[in-house]
Amino acid sequence: MEASFENAAVKIERIVSQSHKSPPGFWYDQPQDEWVIVLRGHAVLEFEGGELIEMKQGDHLAIARHVKHRVSQTGPETIWLAVHIE
Amino acid sequence: MEASFENAAVKIERIVSQSHKSPPGFWYDQPQDEWVIVLRGHAVLEFEGGELIEMKQGDHLAIARHVKHRVSQTGPETIWLAVHIE
Repeated sequence: MEASFENAAVKIERIVSQSHKSPPGFWYDQPQDEWVIVLRGHAVLEFEGGELIEMKQGDHLAIARHVKHRVSQTGPETIWLAVHIE
Repeated sequence: MEASFENAAVKIERIVSQSHKSPPGFWYDQPQDEWVIVLRGHAVLEFEGGELIEMKQGDHLAIARHVKHRVSQTGPETIWLAVHIE
């Protein structure tokens, strides 16, 4: 991960996922709101309760703080931009 | 422009520029910090003092508040993501 911008309120990261998945049973439970966009490739996010969201290039999504989610699947060369918002 | 996320601290916009340029003599002078990335296409930004910055797909740039700048040139189908940060 490469932080592209960071101040007290906001952190912007560029993330490269090479067929990465979250480990079984792992959930992100983050104290900040997050906004993500897929810059290249594709991915599937899983939310607690079982909802799956497929994301392809250009798709974006807001994930409120403490909404548990994991990366179910990513393509071989997937690039994300993630904005973490206090 | 399409606001993709907005709260009190942060606004994220997706901007499509079709060979758009700022009018001659026009300068953006914004009260927020800005972070931009070119999602598709290319552009040239001009800064007060004459510095020109070429941006192609994937390039990103932080522009501090009140740093005067204008869009000198964009490609026929350029898509930006702009994050405005209070």
